[in-house]
Amino acid sequence: MVSTLVKKAADPLGVFDSGLGGLTVVRAIAHTLPGEAMVYFGDTARLPYGNKSPRTVRRLSLEALKFLEHFEIKAWVVACNSASALALHVLTDEATVPVLGVVEAGARQAVAKTRNRRIGVIGTRATVASHCYPAALERLGDGFQVTSAACPLFVSLVEEGWVEHEVTRQVAAEYLEPVRRAGVDTLILGCTHYPLLKKVISDVMGNEVTLIDSGEALAADLLEQLTARGLLAPKRPVEHRFFVSDQSDRFQVEGQRFLGEAVIGRVEAVDQSDLPWYDRPSRTRGHREDA
Amino acid sequence: MVSTLVKKAADPLGVFDSGLGGLTVVRAIAHTLPGEAMVYFGDTARLPYGNKSPRTVRRLSLEALKFLEHFEIKAWVVACNSASALALHVLTDEATVPVLGVVEAGARQAVAKTRNRRIGVIGTRATVASHCYPAALERLGDGFQVTSAACPLFVSLVEEGWVEHEVTRQVAAEYLEPVRRAGVDTLILGCTHYPLLKKVISDVMGNEVTLIDSGEALAADLLEQLTARGLLAPKRPVEHRFFVSDQSDRFQVEGQRFLGEAVIGRVEAVDQSDLPWYDRPSRTRGHREDA
Repeated sequence: MVSTLVKKAADPLGVFDSGLGGLTVVRAIAHTLPGEAMVYFGDTARLPYGNKSPRTVRRLSLEALKFLEHFEIKAWVVACNSASALALHVLTDEATVPVLGVVEAGARQAVAKTRNRRIGVIGTRATVASHCYPAALERLGDGFQVTSAACPLFVSLVEEGWVEHEVTRQVAAEYLEPVRRAGVDTLILGCTHYPLLKKVISDVMGNEVTLIDSGEALAADLLEQLTARGLLAPKRPVEHRFFVSDQSDRFQVEGQRFLGEAVIGRVEAVDQSDLPWYDRPSRTRGHREDA
Repeated sequence: MVSTLVKKAADPLGVFDSGLGGLTVVRAIAHTLPGEAMVYFGDTARLPYGNKSPRTVRRLSLEALKFLEHFEIKAWVVACNSASALALHVLTDEATVPVLGVVEAGARQAVAKTRNRRIGVIGTRATVASHCYPAALERLGDGFQVTSAACPLFVSLVEEGWVEHEVTRQVAAEYLEPVRRAGVDTLILGCTHYPLLKKVISDVMGNEVTLIDSGEALAADLLEQLTARGLLAPKRPVEHRFFVSDQSDRFQVEGQRFLGEAVIGRVEAVDQSDLPWYDRPSRTRGHREDA
């Protein structure tokens, strides 16, 4: 990681997600670190990662890394829980800059907040099945009682815009029953979409339960790491760049919902063809890099 | 389409879908045409197609076509509504065998069944936005009053296994309100997942409304076309092959649910690396086809 020393504080952060959900992480970073410019890559052509195999998630994450490497980034943020859970080690090995994932960040903040050491984790089926949060919590200390619950419909409900719909309340009540019964005092929202359901989740769990937004936790970690490395950007007007692997109107419409109240003014969606996946044989034959 | 003449009746059918939903079409074909062997390709690594751009859906569909061409298939079934809607023309141009899509088949059967000429269409947001069913119905005759409703949560609810859950009833009641109010007597289930919700949908719509299962409609068309071309396989014990672009336990578990009561005994999921997408630059460099 010697090469990180030559990185300049003014260089942007790279933020990677399987789709639009990572924009909640962008929002959290913009709030905590307003001087940092970001280059966002959402792999909308191949989302969701939550039901893909570990091998495929690693392959896609490495492709995203290669794409973001074009932008002279000073640190890499893995906003996608599935990618953080399944590919963080591979990415850390390959990257020449620090790599931060939402899983470690969320786990660390949960440990700081819990009083009764009973921690709940909710996420996609893949995130829960990966046991990444229980493993991360175990690395941080002994004696935590962790209760997990997969909430597969939450992402669809957020994407449908039903963030306070009666149906969403019923689904939440059913999904959250195991973590409620376990008496957790801290609940990790282990999916980038879930911060949009904070109100419903909090209503079901009760005010006394602390909700951990992994994006906010990651922004706090990032502030600490960039400060320690002398890489913190000065406060300045910044412009972010947003790339998606599949152009669609949804980025414009839904993107703003994830970003929240005008933290960032404009969402620029750029269709790009820089992923190896787009190197179809006919094109590869046309201009071979090794010819 | 001269090359179709040399196709043998014993050759298999190729069935393509973005994931597992197309297995409801396999089930319908196996029921109507028990002698036909099928090679199924589910693009589970890149599902869902429903929120991808037309350009991307065409690209992925052509890759699926190229993959299935390895199997000497005598006809190609596009089980995916999004691919049928957005890529059928491109596929028909490229294929050397007949290509049948669920959209035309479903539209044709709806026209045969309706009495009041008010037809409803439900599907994913992409299928509804493509206006493929209204366009297909218009090609089949004048004066149909078509009412469409996007039901984005239905796929997630089926995949969650909540096919008769109270939440699903509420969601159905809300989604189906516009088609109910329009007084349709025929409703096209324009998504491969929806046949699993037939009971709930029928409860909401009422017994007097005919539900059109596009898979069953396609099987009827296929019987007609294969008979006309002398390509109908004799009744015989057959074995099907199932390929997915991303191996996962879900194919084994959920696949059987889509296939129904043991129409086909065994689901064999094979991880394959024959898609151009898997031709990553490093590999492509290793063994160039044009070297």
